[in-house]
Amino acid sequence: MKVEKISELTTNRLSVYLRCLNELSAKGIKTVSSDDLAKRFHLNSAQIRKDLAYFGEFGVRGVGYYVDNLRQDLTKILGLDKPHNVGIIGAGRMGTALADYYEYSQTNFSVVALFDTDKAKVGQKVGNVKIHDIKKFEELVKKEEIDVAVIAVPAQYAQDILEMVVKVGIKAIMNFAPIPLKAEENIKIRTVDLTISLESLSYFLAQPTGENGKIMKPIAKNRRIKKK
Amino acid sequence: MKVEKISELTTNRLSVYLRCLNELSAKGIKTVSSDDLAKRFHLNSAQIRKDLAYFGEFGVRGVGYYVDNLRQDLTKILGLDKPHNVGIIGAGRMGTALADYYEYSQTNFSVVALFDTDKAKVGQKVGNVKIHDIKKFEELVKKEEIDVAVIAVPAQYAQDILEMVVKVGIKAIMNFAPIPLKAEENIKIRTVDLTISLESLSYFLAQPTGENGKIMKPIAKNRRIKKK
Repeated sequence: MKVEKISELTTNRLSVYLRCLNELSAKGIKTVSSDDLAKRFHLNSAQIRKDLAYFGEFGVRGVGYYVDNLRQDLTKILGLDKPHNVGIIGAGRMGTALADYYEYSQTNFSVVALFDTDKAKVGQKVGNVKIHDIKKFEELVKKEEIDVAVIAVPAQYAQDILEMVVKVGIKAIMNFAPIPLKAEENIKIRTVDLTISLESLSYFLAQPTGENGKIMKPIAKNRRIKKK
Repeated sequence: MKVEKISELTTNRLSVYLRCLNELSAKGIKTVSSDDLAKRFHLNSAQIRKDLAYFGEFGVRGVGYYVDNLRQDLTKILGLDKPHNVGIIGAGRMGTALADYYEYSQTNFSVVALFDTDKAKVGQKVGNVKIHDIKKFEELVKKEEIDVAVIAVPAQYAQDILEMVVKVGIKAIMNFAPIPLKAEENIKIRTVDLTISLESLSYFLAQPTGENGKIMKPIAKNRRIKKK
């Protein structure tokens, strides 16, 4: 059996391509070449061809990609044609913000329950999503067919929560606690680090010019323009 | 003057390398090769060498990289040695969650103010950060030397808020509203799409095996093991 390793960076890029293709489709564009796709969305055309080649031949020589076919293929590859039910653990600021965010995002993921230990929160609703006692986690996972858990608890509780989540059979976890979590090989944990996005702004602000996405090497001293 | 384009994907990877190096440094490891770095953190060694080559020669043949030197270099390259002040616009669930999150993250970014139009929120505090009337935005930007804005308002207000932010001279913006925003070339907008992370779980869940980070091609029918 052939085993190929597809990195998270690749699947992230596939998600980005899919967004771009959705935009093109909305504009009525039928075909696109990798070069054109790269130019429009500031991507790397060689990377696009390489990424898509993982999954078989999508391109047609002289034409490029058929936008709608490629959209459908990527949607399937990314598993975005199948519905998933999400439980968010931690009904604090982050957990409730995420419940809100995902409720208004059009994805194949539905947030079906929030969980907390705080008795004052239990029974309340965030949008249409009810906050349950964490003790009812296993019961709700079965009843609501939850297959994805989002961990939004303080860092010090995150590993314990992860173990509880894995114990009831959930294999896909998104972690918003700002620490890396450990689990067995067959469990997928995606830790979302919101500081990385800030750091990319830091890079931009550190550049001598404000030009978007470009850095300029500093001008040699003798080329400075003298003030009169 | 030489102009090189460094993509966001590259700076993101530099951020990841820096995190890895910080971990190695904490373990007392002094040198690391690109192959070793790739193996430990499931990265691509050729990509590491390529990314670091953008910024000059960091590696030493037969030794690899000096962990602490490379950390310092990446910290400088990413501009993480310079402090920045952040204003968050929108003191709803997402805005306050972010204020909270960044307050406890160790970065060179400090959240110094939240802004909202809701009079009931103005004057309240989230942790140590005060919520101000959005009308005082320009005044506070000057007083608190805010150079980064985080937009955490509903999608339909985000473009107007962006224009207000740019007008007072802010050039680096993080957008949590789930729509793309438009600005001039010299403005850096980073839109954080929290559905992409969910979508990568979707990909994992769609694979026939649960093995982390691997996909297996479906087993050919004639190779299935018969039940006795």
